[in-house]
Amino acid sequence: MVEPKVLKGFRDFGAYEESSRQRMFKKISSSFELFGFAPLSTPALEYKEILLNKYGDEEKLVYSFKDNGDRDVAMRYDLTVPMARYVAMNQGSLMLPFKRYQIAPVWRAENTQRGRSREFYQCDVDIVGTNSQVADSEILACMAKTIESLGVEKFELRINDRRVFNNYFGTLGLSAAQIGSIIRGIDKLDKVGVDGVIEYLAKGEFSQTVLDKVREFLTGEDVFAGSVELKESIDNLINLVVAQGVDKNKVVFNPFIARGLEYYTSMVYEVVLSDAPQYGSVSGGGRYDGLLDQFSEKPLPAVGGSIGIDRLFEYLEDKNLLGTLQVGEVVVFNLDQALSADYQVIATSLRGAGISTEVYYDTAKLDKQFKYAEAKGALYAVIMGVEEKSNNEVKLKDLKNRTEQVVEITELADKLSELLKS
Amino acid sequence: MVEPKVLKGFRDFGAYEESSRQRMFKKISSSFELFGFAPLSTPALEYKEILLNKYGDEEKLVYSFKDNGDRDVAMRYDLTVPMARYVAMNQGSLMLPFKRYQIAPVWRAENTQRGRSREFYQCDVDIVGTNSQVADSEILACMAKTIESLGVEKFELRINDRRVFNNYFGTLGLSAAQIGSIIRGIDKLDKVGVDGVIEYLAKGEFSQTVLDKVREFLTGEDVFAGSVELKESIDNLINLVVAQGVDKNKVVFNPFIARGLEYYTSMVYEVVLSDAPQYGSVSGGGRYDGLLDQFSEKPLPAVGGSIGIDRLFEYLEDKNLLGTLQVGEVVVFNLDQALSADYQVIATSLRGAGISTEVYYDTAKLDKQFKYAEAKGALYAVIMGVEEKSNNEVKLKDLKNRTEQVVEITELADKLSELLKS
Repeated sequence: MVEPKVLKGFRDFGAYEESSRQRMFKKISSSFELFGFAPLSTPALEYKEILLNKYGDEEKLVYSFKDNGDRDVAMRYDLTVPMARYVAMNQGSLMLPFKRYQIAPVWRAENTQRGRSREFYQCDVDIVGTNSQVADSEILACMAKTIESLGVEKFELRINDRRVFNNYFGTLGLSAAQIGSIIRGIDKLDKVGVDGVIEYLAKGEFSQTVLDKVREFLTGEDVFAGSVELKESIDNLINLVVAQGVDKNKVVFNPFIARGLEYYTSMVYEVVLSDAPQYGSVSGGGRYDGLLDQFSEKPLPAVGGSIGIDRLFEYLEDKNLLGTLQVGEVVVFNLDQALSADYQVIATSLRGAGISTEVYYDTAKLDKQFKYAEAKGALYAVIMGVEEKSNNEVKLKDLKNRTEQVVEITELADKLSELLKS
Repeated sequence: MVEPKVLKGFRDFGAYEESSRQRMFKKISSSFELFGFAPLSTPALEYKEILLNKYGDEEKLVYSFKDNGDRDVAMRYDLTVPMARYVAMNQGSLMLPFKRYQIAPVWRAENTQRGRSREFYQCDVDIVGTNSQVADSEILACMAKTIESLGVEKFELRINDRRVFNNYFGTLGLSAAQIGSIIRGIDKLDKVGVDGVIEYLAKGEFSQTVLDKVREFLTGEDVFAGSVELKESIDNLINLVVAQGVDKNKVVFNPFIARGLEYYTSMVYEVVLSDAPQYGSVSGGGRYDGLLDQFSEKPLPAVGGSIGIDRLFEYLEDKNLLGTLQVGEVVVFNLDQALSADYQVIATSLRGAGISTEVYYDTAKLDKQFKYAEAKGALYAVIMGVEEKSNNEVKLKDLKNRTEQVVEITELADKLSELLKS
């Protein structure tokens, strides 16, 4: 006998959780489709070289191995790189701008001691082939509306632009890499505060002049350093998002949002739950105009966003926003093996009316059948013995209220449809 | 630059195909849920030992490797073994019988020269913890009804029982392994005919007596060898399936269906498309009462079935049964950058009415915008310049008929909802 167990960082999702997750995925994909994003599916395995030099330090977390044909292969680490590979491969036939969504698992060999999963879902939308700010606004509005469609009311959409940093620190004669370090430092503001950021940056090779400038940026009044153009660009973006029906109190400019990934070039954003900031950002993304150059000779500017489904799932479960399992709403009890076919006929008529129905397989004691029905979360039990059958009727038992009524078989489907609606 | 390419045996699914596949998955899961099957999700990676000694000769096709922690891990090869592992792990808390479905990709290092994919989806339903024939009938009816729900009308559900073989050949004093070989020979009947089966078996160590008995089985009249009990059992099963609303002309006993897998113990079935037998079986399965013993001390009888989504997908595409892409039904044209926010307001009102809507990002020539809309399969274009805007109206262009009408902005969503319904 082999001991049944799962790998650390991996897990099963049973009936209740998986059913809620599926409902969540459906709502998300419906919302994405309303915005004109079409689905794309890419393989779980890619040539390893496709994934190399994309994730910086994190590259060591990519699951990779040699396949039977001695090829270096790697498991999908995110949905952005495979999408970039797809667009580059198909740019002759794809109509640009290309808009796609993908909801799929990715795999990362994370340190599980920090509570991280090694398999988790990403929900991404991206627009490739346009540098229009309208596209940026659509990503932002789509994310806000999608999160709303899940029943989340309290959230903040924080918008920034990497060019704010470049503009502010550009006068100091720093390299792009140095500005990158400053950005990663500022990204920690929420967790460590102003002094913490300065302390962190002081460990690097920055001069006091630079550190003073960072402090000025974090505490001063004009993060635009006088650039009217930058300020207008951000105001305009926010207007476009609000025009798409996002509550203007939820959309804020936050000059200290940086996002960790190096490849963002201008707009960056994140969504935070106002009543549960401990979940961190539940959505994030931005514009990345250089990434696709790694696969394509032709420049392909791009903008995108991603929803972190696992954090959001926990929050929705906490808030009871995911509803209950709607499988097995009715159980047809088994009182007499000779009536097996009759029970099936009844179940079939209920299924025909869209009611999820189970038939109890054996003629077990009624007690046991009730226990089964209740454990499965069924709402009604249909009970028919030889006597009821001869009268063309059944006993219909409400499992919550413990009430019972007699219903004619021909009227059962209508009756239950009505009861389940209310 | 890295050449963008995908691994052999793997593929992308673009907007049209993936959207059809998603619709197919939704119909399948809805049908499974009507029968009271709840979803289960298991990881893509399992400990390798969980998957060992389950797939016979095919074991060499399992993708396996050592992870960063030097653990032997393997990619999911089917959905049955992980489900068995899950049930065994959770048998203390699971209510039996346990009914689950799973729709997920599996990975097999197949020979791609034979046109086989290395990544493909399986759609499985299984019932664990009962040996009731009612459960068998439910698997069969569920598969038939699910295939019907996809619009397939012409199919045959072929049912058999492994005990038919055991009964017929049991008098010859053969070992279980020998009867297994005979079963695998008979499974080839469709492809090679009676003489072909005998020829195939003659290569083994079978005596002329055995070969004669096989020929008698394949050409004679009483495959039950006088067993009334076996015949009644099959008749009863067919009655139970028909009681669940499956057309009785579609349900046939076929004593020559064997299914390749060794672990089936009694009922086996397959579904074949009557007008497209070249696709082979699009669904198959059976009862496997011993498999879970590998993980569990307690006997857990089980029965299940699987739909081969890729074959069925090709057939449905051929028959035009999958509908068209419903993403980007309407494109709002961009005539004036100053109206960007107004275009977004219009798009938002359409999305609010459940209409998938795109906004063209740049003020390109109308020609180019029409080309984009048509390439994306949009049905309507909404055109508004400064003049129309001042009259609170838009031009609504039907992209199929090339007709145009003027519509008030406040009435646009209702108008389009109506037009898209018809």
